[in-house]
Amino acid sequence: MAQKTALIVYAHQSPVSFNAAARDVAVQALTKQGYKVLVSDLYAMKFKASATEEDIKGDLKNPEHFIYNNEMMVAWQDGRLSDDIAEEQQKLEQAELVIFQFPLYWFSVPAIIKGWIDRVLTQGFAFTLQKMYDNGVFKDKKAILSFTTGGMKSMFTPDGVNGDINVLLWPLQNGVLRFCGFQVLAPQIFWCPAHTPPEGRSAMLEAWSERLNGVFAEKPLSFAPTEYFDLTFQGGFSLRPEVKEKYASEPYGITTAQHLGKPLPPDNQTTAKQS
Amino acid sequence: MAQKTALIVYAHQSPVSFNAAARDVAVQALTKQGYKVLVSDLYAMKFKASATEEDIKGDLKNPEHFIYNNEMMVAWQDGRLSDDIAEEQQKLEQAELVIFQFPLYWFSVPAIIKGWIDRVLTQGFAFTLQKMYDNGVFKDKKAILSFTTGGMKSMFTPDGVNGDINVLLWPLQNGVLRFCGFQVLAPQIFWCPAHTPPEGRSAMLEAWSERLNGVFAEKPLSFAPTEYFDLTFQGGFSLRPEVKEKYASEPYGITTAQHLGKPLPPDNQTTAKQS
Repeated sequence: MAQKTALIVYAHQSPVSFNAAARDVAVQALTKQGYKVLVSDLYAMKFKASATEEDIKGDLKNPEHFIYNNEMMVAWQDGRLSDDIAEEQQKLEQAELVIFQFPLYWFSVPAIIKGWIDRVLTQGFAFTLQKMYDNGVFKDKKAILSFTTGGMKSMFTPDGVNGDINVLLWPLQNGVLRFCGFQVLAPQIFWCPAHTPPEGRSAMLEAWSERLNGVFAEKPLSFAPTEYFDLTFQGGFSLRPEVKEKYASEPYGITTAQHLGKPLPPDNQTTAKQS
Repeated sequence: MAQKTALIVYAHQSPVSFNAAARDVAVQALTKQGYKVLVSDLYAMKFKASATEEDIKGDLKNPEHFIYNNEMMVAWQDGRLSDDIAEEQQKLEQAELVIFQFPLYWFSVPAIIKGWIDRVLTQGFAFTLQKMYDNGVFKDKKAILSFTTGGMKSMFTPDGVNGDINVLLWPLQNGVLRFCGFQVLAPQIFWCPAHTPPEGRSAMLEAWSERLNGVFAEKPLSFAPTEYFDLTFQGGFSLRPEVKEKYASEPYGITTAQHLGKPLPPDNQTTAKQS
């Protein structure tokens, strides 16, 4: 049996940061379980973040009107993606588990990780118009967002000054990871390590290590099954009437953003529903 | 009286794109109103997206443990930010209105715009721990996200396959723009221009031009006033009990993410509430 593989997409500038420690803990915990662990240390790699023509080798399909997504799709088919993108795609293909390790910048991923998302998750390779969401290309892979915050947990609640963390996570977890088919595991959130004393920081890292020991048995977060939607232009890619009816008597919406005008299902993007 | 100024932060690779046309329409409409219009054409400028040590001139405060936000704050105070960042900050300082013009990439801004956000909105310059949200540094400025989508509008609804667009907009509009104090005007969303016939595209651009004629009289979107929150560590930066009580009988939460476990106020991040 082939050795299993994990990929850590890591973005911090300093090797002595808490994020670096969280990465090291993950490398250790997964290696101990027999995994081959690949790390993409994006700053160290000087990973290019911007989506440009340089991402494509050879002639453009339509140099008069450059449309990134279209050009990338063709370049992927023809094996003409830039080497840095092709390498990341090869790592991603091998990985059963992908961990994104980063500090939250402006309530989202740092630009260098957004660049990895924009450039590596090429149409054809990471999704097609037929293969997305729970029919997605990466449906046999798991993904985790693991990140540090500058603020404390109570700021990120439905009555906190920054609002519900579930809302912040939705575009990344549903719009990027779930869109490509990933089984999205609960995010690993390190609340404000910069203002936590050393023992607290150690405890956070220990909890992360322990979680990773059981990570492959974890239940993923809940998203709406694509069969709930009429995925045709006439149907508007909207909920099927019978599903809408079924949910009419439910107290909560389906997910954080497919809320149907109802209260959001609590912790939809942070905690897996136990069945 | 000094001439008023607008800044367009623009991100598309092609000068013949719909995004370029939307930028040109804005330049024209605002120039006609007597505005000086600055354009930051990020791809043409080869704007650096990643947050690195190169953003700081001279010695680092703590080279052993590089913390981007801390180093940038000190470098801003000392006038030691890299020239490209200092130039963007000078443009931003002059501008009464900032328009971000971009194609939606993975349900958010392209990495090159995230890089502009991460690098230009330095602590001290764009916010302080005292000056944020409605007490924010840029409270006399207006901002608009103007963007194109690949999908149709019905996909981005509370019962659409991608979920409620209001949820997607929250991290950017509240977490970035409102955080810095901007009066956030309704987003200008160009739904799926790539699959719209030429007359439809022209009509979209005309509507954008017309909107801009009245843009300085527009009411901004509604956010939670910071006075609603107990902005102390003991208070957890959470809603004051008396405000919570006041909202107990309301049918909706306060905003998209400060929802208090209630249904989201409809279109909170897309439509200004008429008083």
